Amino acid sequence: MSHFLLGVLGGMGPLATVDLLQKIIEETPADGDRDHAPVVAWNVPQIADRQRALAGSGPSPLPALLAGIEQLNRVGASHILIACNTAHHWYDQMAAASHAPILHIADATTQALRQRPAARIGLIATQGTLDAGWFQRRFAGLGSATLLPRPAEMADWFVPGCYAVKRGELRMGGEFFDRLAAALVSRGAEQLVLACTEVPPGLAAVESSYRALSLDATRALAHAAPCLWIDYRDNNQLHTRLSE
Amino acid sequence: MSHFLLGVLGGMGPLATVDLLQKIIEETPADGDRDHAPVVAWNVPQIADRQRALAGSGPSPLPALLAGIEQLNRVGASHILIACNTAHHWYDQMAAASHAPILHIADATTQALRQRPAARIGLIATQGTLDAGWFQRRFAGLGSATLLPRPAEMADWFVPGCYAVKRGELRMGGEFFDRLAAALVSRGAEQLVLACTEVPPGLAAVESSYRALSLDATRALAHAAPCLWIDYRDNNQLHTRLSE
Repeated sequence: MSHFLLGVLGGMGPLATVDLLQKIIEETPADGDRDHAPVVAWNVPQIADRQRALAGSGPSPLPALLAGIEQLNRVGASHILIACNTAHHWYDQMAAASHAPILHIADATTQALRQRPAARIGLIATQGTLDAGWFQRRFAGLGSATLLPRPAEMADWFVPGCYAVKRGELRMGGEFFDRLAAALVSRGAEQLVLACTEVPPGLAAVESSYRALSLDATRALAHAAPCLWIDYRDNNQLHTRLSE
Repeated sequence: MSHFLLGVLGGMGPLATVDLLQKIIEETPADGDRDHAPVVAWNVPQIADRQRALAGSGPSPLPALLAGIEQLNRVGASHILIACNTAHHWYDQMAAASHAPILHIADATTQALRQRPAARIGLIATQGTLDAGWFQRRFAGLGSATLLPRPAEMADWFVPGCYAVKRGELRMGGEFFDRLAAALVSRGAEQLVLACTEVPPGLAAVESSYRALSLDATRALAHAAPCLWIDYRDNNQLHTRLSE
C-alpha cells in the first residue's frame, strides 16, 4: 500500500458521522496531531432515507451511496468506513464499486465482542438492520443468543428516538432509547449492542446507565480504523519522522 | 451556482475540525438530516506545524494546505472553510489556487461581533495570528481596542495549552486557557475572542466561566457557513423537495 487515507461515508445523519470522527480520534493513542489517522469524510445528508427504502415506502439511497464511494476513491481513500449501520444493506454493491476495501461495521463489532462474552445480547438497530440478520448471525457464531426489540417497542421508542436525534433533539431521543434498553435488559439481555449510529449520542445526552452494559458499534468501527492506521504508521516509522 | 458543497480544510488539529463540523450542525436549523449542509472534510493532520513555521523553526505547511485545497476542489466543493486560524496566514495563496471561494474566519468573527459591541476585546490566538494583525485591524474597524496576551502568558499558558489539547488532554489545556482568559479580563477585556480552534474545546472541558464572555471564532465560521447553505436550500426549495 503506497499511502493511507481513511474515507468515511457519512451524512446518515451528519451528527452520527461527527460522532464517528470524534471516536476515531479518541481511539487513537497520540502524542500530537500528526499521530492521528488522515481522514476524509463525505458528510452529505442529501440521500434517501434508508429505513423508508427498506420498508418499501421510499426511494433507494444506493445512487447517493455509490456517488459518495466514488468521491472517496477519487481523493485516494485507502480504506472506507460507513457511518451508518443500515446502509450496510447495500454493502456488496458498494464494495464492488470501490477500489478501497470497505470495513464492515458488524465485523468490527464482532471483534470487539470477543472481549466481552455474553449469553444473551440485546440488539438495538433499525428494522432494516434487524431484518438483514448480519449481527444475529455473528452473535450466534460467538455462542450468544440475540434478543430483539418487539414491534411495538420499535414503533413507539426506536423510530421516534432516531428521528428525534436527527432533528437535534438528543435528550428526547435518548429517553426513548433508554426505555428500549431497559426493556431488553428486563427480558434478560446481559449486554446491549447499539447498532444504529443515532443511539449512542442519544444515550450519552441523557447519561443513560445502560451505557455501561452497551457495546457501541460506532466505537467498535472507530477502534478498528486506528488499528489499521497505527500498523501503517509504525511500519513506516511515520510517528518518529513526522514528529521531528 | 449549480450545486452546493461545503469543503472543510482541517487536520490542524483533527479534534478542532470535528469541533467545527459539530458546530456547523448546531448552527443549522433543521427538521431532519437533509436540512443540513452537505460537507466534505479533509481532516489530514500530516502537515507541518503552523506555529513553528511562522516562528522560523520548522518547514512550511503550504504544500500540504494546497494539496488539501486541490482535493476539496476535485470533489466539487463550492465554498471552503479552514478549520485553523493560524493557517489563514497562507490565505492568499490558497485563495489563488482554489476555484471555490474561501471564507475568512476573521470576517466571520467580525460579522458576529457586530451584535456584541465592546470597548476592549481580549484576543486569544497563536503568535502567528497575533502578529498577522487580521483580528486587531477588524476590531479597530468596529471601534474596539484589542488587548493581547503578554509574552510570558503565551509561553507559559497559551502554547502548552494548545499542545495539551492536541495530545487529547483537554482539561489540562482548558486550565491553561482559563488562566489566560482571567488575565485578559483582569486587564480590562470586556469580551474575549477565541481565535485558535484548540481553545473552545479546552475551555468547554473545564466548564470555564469565561465562556460567557467569549466569542468563539470556530462557531462564528460555523454560523456563516449554514447561512450560505440555508439561502441556497430555500432558494432551490430543497427543504420541501428533499423532505417529501
